[in-house]
Amino acid sequence: MQLLFENILLNKGFRNDRALEIATVFTNNSVDGVYTHGVNRFPRFIEYTKKGYIQKDAVPSLKSKFNGVEQWDGNLGPGISNAIFAANQSVKLAAEYGIGCVALSNTHHWMRGGTYGWQAAKAGSVFIGWTNTSANMPAWGAMDARLGNNPLVIALPYNNDAIVLDMAMSQYSFGAMELSAMKKEKLSVYGGFDQDGHITHDPAAILLSRRPIPIGYWKGAGLSLLLDLLAAILSGGLSTREISKREAEYGLSQVFVAMDISRLPGHSTIPSLIEDIITDYKQSVPRDAGTFIRYPGERILQTRERNLNKGIPVMQPVWETILKL
Amino acid sequence: MQLLFENILLNKGFRNDRALEIATVFTNNSVDGVYTHGVNRFPRFIEYTKKGYIQKDAVPSLKSKFNGVEQWDGNLGPGISNAIFAANQSVKLAAEYGIGCVALSNTHHWMRGGTYGWQAAKAGSVFIGWTNTSANMPAWGAMDARLGNNPLVIALPYNNDAIVLDMAMSQYSFGAMELSAMKKEKLSVYGGFDQDGHITHDPAAILLSRRPIPIGYWKGAGLSLLLDLLAAILSGGLSTREISKREAEYGLSQVFVAMDISRLPGHSTIPSLIEDIITDYKQSVPRDAGTFIRYPGERILQTRERNLNKGIPVMQPVWETILKL
Repeated sequence: MQLLFENILLNKGFRNDRALEIATVFTNNSVDGVYTHGVNRFPRFIEYTKKGYIQKDAVPSLKSKFNGVEQWDGNLGPGISNAIFAANQSVKLAAEYGIGCVALSNTHHWMRGGTYGWQAAKAGSVFIGWTNTSANMPAWGAMDARLGNNPLVIALPYNNDAIVLDMAMSQYSFGAMELSAMKKEKLSVYGGFDQDGHITHDPAAILLSRRPIPIGYWKGAGLSLLLDLLAAILSGGLSTREISKREAEYGLSQVFVAMDISRLPGHSTIPSLIEDIITDYKQSVPRDAGTFIRYPGERILQTRERNLNKGIPVMQPVWETILKL
Repeated sequence: MQLLFENILLNKGFRNDRALEIATVFTNNSVDGVYTHGVNRFPRFIEYTKKGYIQKDAVPSLKSKFNGVEQWDGNLGPGISNAIFAANQSVKLAAEYGIGCVALSNTHHWMRGGTYGWQAAKAGSVFIGWTNTSANMPAWGAMDARLGNNPLVIALPYNNDAIVLDMAMSQYSFGAMELSAMKKEKLSVYGGFDQDGHITHDPAAILLSRRPIPIGYWKGAGLSLLLDLLAAILSGGLSTREISKREAEYGLSQVFVAMDISRLPGHSTIPSLIEDIITDYKQSVPRDAGTFIRYPGERILQTRERNLNKGIPVMQPVWETILKL
């Protein structure tokens, strides 16, 4: 998959190192089971490049710097490359100032946010990052979508790998609801409203109404609003409102905050402190025999192992589309 | 109320400035309608001081510093005083480094987290802060509480005041559920499980089972876990697990991150950018005529005005208890 993606990108005129980088992330996201932001999304990435939304050779440029805070303009370069750069830069700032913040404007979809959590955590940092999106979720109590689902990522090093929380502010992504609707399955918890305004477990009804619900109802709506406000202010970039006026979702604003925990006294005891908390968490009494209490990112490690051993499952029409790119 | 609280604190041997500070915050929290962490909670604060959990004269001491990151030991001083100090210190670090992080160990309940959001935002900073708590919420899929509800605060300056999100990771606080149960009202959305394991709107049933649900189910559970991990690691203090072993909830770990937005280029345009986003948000089409779309903290400003004009409503037994302190 990685070789094919790389070749397609090289054929489309991407530089060698950038083709490898982008192909690697799309492939790793698929290995980790995040197909919606991996293999399934690759054709749209190529399409956006062709349409000129994505500037394939653009690199970020520094807009401003004040010690631990930097603003970068993504210049509409590939979202993956911009986000890798920004996460790396936040880790460098953290090494110098203890804590660093890179705010990135004018960028593209970063695909899976967790990618950058893993990146920073594997470099020894605690990481908090988020992106805004175009409007795809109504405020709590509202009919029309004026909030993004604005994924938030929090990560920390753990066990030669990382604990990575990667969560959008909607209870379910549209991708997850489309999959459930295709399989004619109900959602396990309420996912939104139907067209008559009734809260429902039916993904097809929510896809029709375009009224997904925020996590925790009014709480997730508030968190989504604040993440957008902070992303736009800190980066000097576009808000969800402004992005939504465009013909496609581009010109996003993102924030990358890293903290260098190797500078903390007693940092050598941090791994055992984390292990204590995780061990206790996993000793929770499950409500039934089929339930396992997992920490954020744990399930992905299992998918990663399975897909590396048995191969990445890809839907036939997706693969056929990719072969024609 | 403030004078009475101040006199009680002075009688209990608090220093003048500290008595004023603590009396002011308990009163302001009540003016803002957060009675559970204002007037209703004042007697327990006095009780904890009497029991020696709270060291009334203790001040924070610096444990470590690396540029923009500082660790402070709260020395079990009053949670309000420690948090005011830490929020102020994070704002000072932000002025020097652009972004600053104060991690505070060994402290007490900060009462209303929003207090410190307003404080930092009024000083011109963007603020992100959180606290851990003792275990009071099961993981998603679990029967027993091993997570705290770990309130998260995000704030930014707005309109000579602030936008302040102050949210615990449980859908409802125990205080809110007790109030609904007393009034024999159902919760507006699911709040937890009953003793038979059925998800329910009945606050009395959840108070019995002690199984409130996290916001967004598995998502809020994950966020709560990460907030506890980060608070414990960054502060070098106790985790929810360790706090829960104590006879009362004390020795908390908290994080205060501030960013100085006055250092950003184009910061003079930030107020109008915020106004644009908030105006758009409030133009959401409400689902019915009785629904108003409010930004986080907006309702509190209305309560503040009402209570300042008409007085703070206090339950008779609470006031009688306070008069006997």
